[in-house]
Amino acid sequence: MDRISLIDDTFLRLETRRQPFHIGMLMLFDPGEKAPQDFVMKLSEKLRKSTEMQEPFNRHLVQKNGLHYWEEDTDFDLEHHFAHIALPKPGRIRELLATVSRIHGGHLDRAYPLWRIYLIEGIEDGRFAVYMKIHHSLVDGIAGIKMLISSMSSNKRESTKLPPFWENGISNSKAQHLPVPTPTAKGLSAISKLSKNGLRSIPPVYREIRSNIADIWKGNPDFVFGGQAPRCSLNQSVSATRRFAAQSYSTPRMRAVGKAFDASINDVALAMCGAALRQYLADLDDLPLQPLVAAVPVSVRREDSTSAGNEVAFTLCHLATHLKDPAERIVAIKACMDYNKKHIRNLSPTQTLTTAAVKLIPGAINAIFNVNPNKTLGNLVISHVPGPKEDLYWQGAKLSGLYPLSLLTDGAALNITLISRHDTVDFGLIACRKSVPHVQRILKYLEDGLVELEEAVKNRNAP
Amino acid sequence: MDRISLIDDTFLRLETRRQPFHIGMLMLFDPGEKAPQDFVMKLSEKLRKSTEMQEPFNRHLVQKNGLHYWEEDTDFDLEHHFAHIALPKPGRIRELLATVSRIHGGHLDRAYPLWRIYLIEGIEDGRFAVYMKIHHSLVDGIAGIKMLISSMSSNKRESTKLPPFWENGISNSKAQHLPVPTPTAKGLSAISKLSKNGLRSIPPVYREIRSNIADIWKGNPDFVFGGQAPRCSLNQSVSATRRFAAQSYSTPRMRAVGKAFDASINDVALAMCGAALRQYLADLDDLPLQPLVAAVPVSVRREDSTSAGNEVAFTLCHLATHLKDPAERIVAIKACMDYNKKHIRNLSPTQTLTTAAVKLIPGAINAIFNVNPNKTLGNLVISHVPGPKEDLYWQGAKLSGLYPLSLLTDGAALNITLISRHDTVDFGLIACRKSVPHVQRILKYLEDGLVELEEAVKNRNAP
Repeated sequence: MDRISLIDDTFLRLETRRQPFHIGMLMLFDPGEKAPQDFVMKLSEKLRKSTEMQEPFNRHLVQKNGLHYWEEDTDFDLEHHFAHIALPKPGRIRELLATVSRIHGGHLDRAYPLWRIYLIEGIEDGRFAVYMKIHHSLVDGIAGIKMLISSMSSNKRESTKLPPFWENGISNSKAQHLPVPTPTAKGLSAISKLSKNGLRSIPPVYREIRSNIADIWKGNPDFVFGGQAPRCSLNQSVSATRRFAAQSYSTPRMRAVGKAFDASINDVALAMCGAALRQYLADLDDLPLQPLVAAVPVSVRREDSTSAGNEVAFTLCHLATHLKDPAERIVAIKACMDYNKKHIRNLSPTQTLTTAAVKLIPGAINAIFNVNPNKTLGNLVISHVPGPKEDLYWQGAKLSGLYPLSLLTDGAALNITLISRHDTVDFGLIACRKSVPHVQRILKYLEDGLVELEEAVKNRNAP
Repeated sequence: MDRISLIDDTFLRLETRRQPFHIGMLMLFDPGEKAPQDFVMKLSEKLRKSTEMQEPFNRHLVQKNGLHYWEEDTDFDLEHHFAHIALPKPGRIRELLATVSRIHGGHLDRAYPLWRIYLIEGIEDGRFAVYMKIHHSLVDGIAGIKMLISSMSSNKRESTKLPPFWENGISNSKAQHLPVPTPTAKGLSAISKLSKNGLRSIPPVYREIRSNIADIWKGNPDFVFGGQAPRCSLNQSVSATRRFAAQSYSTPRMRAVGKAFDASINDVALAMCGAALRQYLADLDDLPLQPLVAAVPVSVRREDSTSAGNEVAFTLCHLATHLKDPAERIVAIKACMDYNKKHIRNLSPTQTLTTAAVKLIPGAINAIFNVNPNKTLGNLVISHVPGPKEDLYWQGAKLSGLYPLSLLTDGAALNITLISRHDTVDFGLIACRKSVPHVQRILKYLEDGLVELEEAVKNRNAP
């Protein structure tokens, strides 16, 4: 029996009826035109024969005297974890997203290892899908993708020889966690790390915070602090029902825009999100005058870092939703992200985490004591997870989409997570069905946002 | 805003992560051989046009100062409540039951009216299914069936003109509740009724209890008290995962057996359950020496009763699982049920409820203080709900099965509910997947039990 780490335990304890703490992934696969009619049925039969579990799929939760432990599950019940399901006709992406939305809303049963995989047949274009849900206490987003990819191959034939996901886990999946927008979880983790690293962390953190306060006094538009976000309809208590929307956008198109503005793919993605949310909220007559603020996880791994695993912290970035001009918007977003990166570069990963926790304090105090009901800690989380950079196959079928589903907490009724691949950037939007009623509109507005940026590039280059 | 009744409130408060308090119904329909290929898709489109809700489908839960209220939902979101789904190939009843098991396990979202309906296509024999889940605080089993049947007609053509279930609710659905095996709920309800009827209820209740105690001293085998049930694998804490098994058995065959033993259809059903559970537990080497005890809801409505609605209490019946001979078993079960009915006849409905609550006390004390860990309050609940007695059609398709899904509580990991129709008796078994791992075996053993009884009849009639 292993005692659960502090942050994983927090993920279990923060889970409520309305706030499940599992994350998900929707994968689309194309078996090719020559694939037999019964490809998915045969695949389902094949997968059912794999009844061994590897780490972390074999971890079973045990509660004893109020504490949580992981224990190896010796009573593996594949039928509980693996389901073969089908879409109703006509089997459009719409039916796929409705099905995945419903499944993602439900809790994982703590009597079993905390994951479930669904093989989904019946998409009209001949593709099939796999949806996986796994508790955030078992795996984080980056490790989760690594884990999935380790069961895929760039060689179609080789891919059929690889075991299914649950027989091919990764042991160091718990190295580091993608931060979740919970000040409690972040704060605990950072403070525990800070104490390990001793007092030498304090002076740089103090200097960083002092510099931040100076930026507030100066009114530096590139500095964003926790609690300056204007409250809007995205910042409500969440229901237990989820709506999932997903779409792929062209990586080369996004890269071209980035190049024109000397911006990263991530900056372009944030600018697309800014454009889309500006339009979405304007439709609802709910666009705040001040810019929306996104919590953006960033890698804080330095070149001289020797530690294994991912070093990730999260930073706050405004989405320039107060600006009308798309070119001005991406420039402002890039400036804010550049400011964040520069400051992170001056700190060690632990110091960054601590600083992030300290910066959240004003927002957390407001969240708890409701000092200013028009402000909130942040409007949403936008995560960008690097994905595979080549064509991959799983069980003989080509991966054609990799859409993440994150989790929601009260006050943050929308989450946007994207995975950048070589040919497409796959956006996964998860929303509370009750508070964010038309989340599918945001997909169109993201595309509109990209088109607007492309036009801005054209106008820039025009003589 | 209406304050919720005491018993409905109890159903909401007893609900936990592992113990959802909704009930369900799986309906099988046959559209006929001449039905067009896209029958279900067209039906789905038609149903989606019905966007009005009637009582109780429009009731929305509101919590205020720790109290629950019902409020009319004015923001009806049909897509949340109605889903069109499909079975994976090959679309056997096995795939249908696996799908319904998964859906039945999930909670209803309290942000919406507490019900959901699934239209299920893709059964290999051309039929389709409807699965409905509704919170027990909105409706009881008997009223639930009435509600469903009110949307059906004995005339195929007429049936297509009736509105879907949610536009055709019934207003007096809350008249009376089918008792759920929760001493708290029963006790509260009975005591509240007793106080309404004043002290005049006490002498008959006292006489009844005194007579019961006399029966214990005499060792009367027909008297069963709460707490005499031998603990077995059915009496464990439940997980959140459900397994559903369902099958129809011939009403004429069961009626013929009943006639031979001067027993009711219900006695025959209990004898089949006794045979099946005896075999099931013997397979697991877990058959107790003492007979299993079932809590059996019975109608306590007397001929001179003027009250509207159903008057239902529950009584305890042993299943004669200690007896090897099927004929002896049904005779013993009938004797026990006859004893129960005779005693109920001497009491008013309220007195019956009170007596039931008082009789549960020894078992409840044992459940709480664990005085005798080998005994339990009862082994399972077996409910029998009268169903329609003629062929019915819904939206032009013939009803061919009506399988109920009940709820489970800690200590009762299996529930058997049956609906008797004119041609078949439809059994629905709901079990905790973890504690009752092979529930589908019980279906076969029920059939074996019926065959055994038929052979016993033959041997009796033999010269």
